[in-house]
Amino acid sequence: MQDLYIQAEAFISSMQQFEGNQSNSDKWKQRLDSIKKSIEETGTYSHTLEELSFGAKLAWRNSNRCIGRHFWRQLDVFDCRALKTKEAIMDALENHVAFSFNKGAIKSAVTIFAPKNQTSKTPDPIRILNHQLIRYAGFKKEDGTILGDPHSLHFTQELEKHGWVPPNKNAFTPLPWLIQINGETQEPYPVLEEKPHLLTEVQIEHPENEAFKTLGLKWYSTPILSDMVLMIGGIHYPCAPFNGWYMGTEIGARNLADEDRYNYLPQIAKIFQLDTKNNRSLWRDRAIIELNRAVLYSFDRDKVKIGDHHAITRQFEKFCENETNSKCPITGDWSWLVPPISASQTPTFSQEFDPTVVQHTNFFYQASPLEGNNQAPAPKGKCPYHIS
Amino acid sequence: MQDLYIQAEAFISSMQQFEGNQSNSDKWKQRLDSIKKSIEETGTYSHTLEELSFGAKLAWRNSNRCIGRHFWRQLDVFDCRALKTKEAIMDALENHVAFSFNKGAIKSAVTIFAPKNQTSKTPDPIRILNHQLIRYAGFKKEDGTILGDPHSLHFTQELEKHGWVPPNKNAFTPLPWLIQINGETQEPYPVLEEKPHLLTEVQIEHPENEAFKTLGLKWYSTPILSDMVLMIGGIHYPCAPFNGWYMGTEIGARNLADEDRYNYLPQIAKIFQLDTKNNRSLWRDRAIIELNRAVLYSFDRDKVKIGDHHAITRQFEKFCENETNSKCPITGDWSWLVPPISASQTPTFSQEFDPTVVQHTNFFYQASPLEGNNQAPAPKGKCPYHIS
Repeated sequence: MQDLYIQAEAFISSMQQFEGNQSNSDKWKQRLDSIKKSIEETGTYSHTLEELSFGAKLAWRNSNRCIGRHFWRQLDVFDCRALKTKEAIMDALENHVAFSFNKGAIKSAVTIFAPKNQTSKTPDPIRILNHQLIRYAGFKKEDGTILGDPHSLHFTQELEKHGWVPPNKNAFTPLPWLIQINGETQEPYPVLEEKPHLLTEVQIEHPENEAFKTLGLKWYSTPILSDMVLMIGGIHYPCAPFNGWYMGTEIGARNLADEDRYNYLPQIAKIFQLDTKNNRSLWRDRAIIELNRAVLYSFDRDKVKIGDHHAITRQFEKFCENETNSKCPITGDWSWLVPPISASQTPTFSQEFDPTVVQHTNFFYQASPLEGNNQAPAPKGKCPYHIS
Repeated sequence: MQDLYIQAEAFISSMQQFEGNQSNSDKWKQRLDSIKKSIEETGTYSHTLEELSFGAKLAWRNSNRCIGRHFWRQLDVFDCRALKTKEAIMDALENHVAFSFNKGAIKSAVTIFAPKNQTSKTPDPIRILNHQLIRYAGFKKEDGTILGDPHSLHFTQELEKHGWVPPNKNAFTPLPWLIQINGETQEPYPVLEEKPHLLTEVQIEHPENEAFKTLGLKWYSTPILSDMVLMIGGIHYPCAPFNGWYMGTEIGARNLADEDRYNYLPQIAKIFQLDTKNNRSLWRDRAIIELNRAVLYSFDRDKVKIGDHHAITRQFEKFCENETNSKCPITGDWSWLVPPISASQTPTFSQEFDPTVVQHTNFFYQASPLEGNNQAPAPKGKCPYHIS
């Protein structure tokens, strides 16, 4: 438990530093004493609401791979640690989806459920098994190809094993939610079928090319990551879905473009009549830019907040400046902070980052509790973003 | 000198492993004995021609940042260790330029001059102060802007201090060679003026857009890096210019496109009538693709060898496969092995690399011997690619 106290201390010290309240150092000393006592007596400690709120923000600020950290102070934190029933949990998740969408003016938010039991090996109190709260299914077709999002293939199969009957199977079938309470997997909840107003999507069309919309592309408005663990001062919150708003390239240069995802570039190239015989014509490079233009144009048309990689990397530069001015060390993962297209045209490309991963307060990957899941946790000590 | 022997041993052992000549282990043992004896008696040792040749190839193979390593066995090695006079050195460099161009069918080559004196602090026997053997000057204009390549600004000023009078100043004025022999800076040698057949360039035009050529863009055929130190088995060769052939993005996505280099994207956007009011229109992204198409098209038109980033990253994947099959550990620097445009469309993007820098045999950056040079060496122990 010594370890937990060290992490708590590091967190409380970050909080004190942020508040700049040096004169009132008694307050912090008293708080640390009470944490120490609590850990000695119960093996753990509990965050005040203020700590929970600052801790979630600090975890975002410390997320090396996140390009959107400039806005780390503007995070709405929902304290749902006390919720225990499926109904209450689902309500809270629905609230997160609606709140964060905010009629298109997307707000960053995190909903924090009960912490892991630090003192016994009991299952996590609550786990969401979905990768994101809104995500599309992936179905294996008879010819072996995949309909929908290949990234969801395994999870879609799990849902079907747990009784989900997809109402229809198309390229953009929204997934139901699958949660565990105290290790018990609950029946899938097809929330986005039952409450379609929560499924906010953007139909993708191109600013100039009329034929583009015949592809029928769309994407959901809000990326709400739901399978990571939030760590605050050594306390694990294994269920703490959070969201920001999209950077266009996440949709246009990865989700819809990657060969092992939706792989739409060949169809887009056809619409633009590009010569696809050889990659050397740079047809992939041209198609991916047109797709990204379409994504930004369509979100803008629907007034759904989205950043472009030029503006967001410049905001990130501002974040780095602010951190440096506040004498806060900046840590970062260059490979994630540089966009997947036109990297050398953005300011992060020529920056260097300290790759140290702050351990006490951060977001981490965690192993899925699904049996036979194919998202094996990284070998211990190899990937600094995983916890075991 | 213990250290030198350890590095020699590591090198000889790599060579033995590569030749797979386990049965003849006496030969290697004898060679190591003779190296040990030489180091004990003279403080250093001398490479055989075979070692020099294999060592240069191995240094290439070990170059974490090089995407072209698939062809590491195909390196022509010129042993110029014995050359001492300016005339002989210039002849060898001219030979390198002509040989490597090879009428457009560019061949990888390295020309190796005398090693550093490992036992005394005397100046390096030979140093080339140019970054590359062919490179364009950068001149500060009266209005403070730069004509030519901003990367060459400081070196161009040095050349002028050393007596160079540019015959004309334009965007693509080739630089003379500046070398040091035993620490003595020689008079600049305007080789590309005097022997214009050595200056092989490609005029850049666009496959479809006629107006593109009005920009008057061009680039030289062969990138011959001349300011790095080649290390083989602990022996430093501070003058060992080497070349491969270009990957198109080096010219189209960096040299001609970077804002702090030639910065041609705004002019290209104008020619394509792109809306440059806001980066969110992705005009930079579109212009950079058209520039890269133009570069590949123009080199192909002139039958000058150049790789595109799709093909070269696939070759690199092949290299990784071969190395794995030969049970050779692959080291690499992801940030350099992923191209600066369309990164997520290339296979290196989803690979991970061990960033260890092999120390005994490799190419390293070294401090320039020019006084007041602004290319300060990296802080010791911080950048693994620098030696002090």
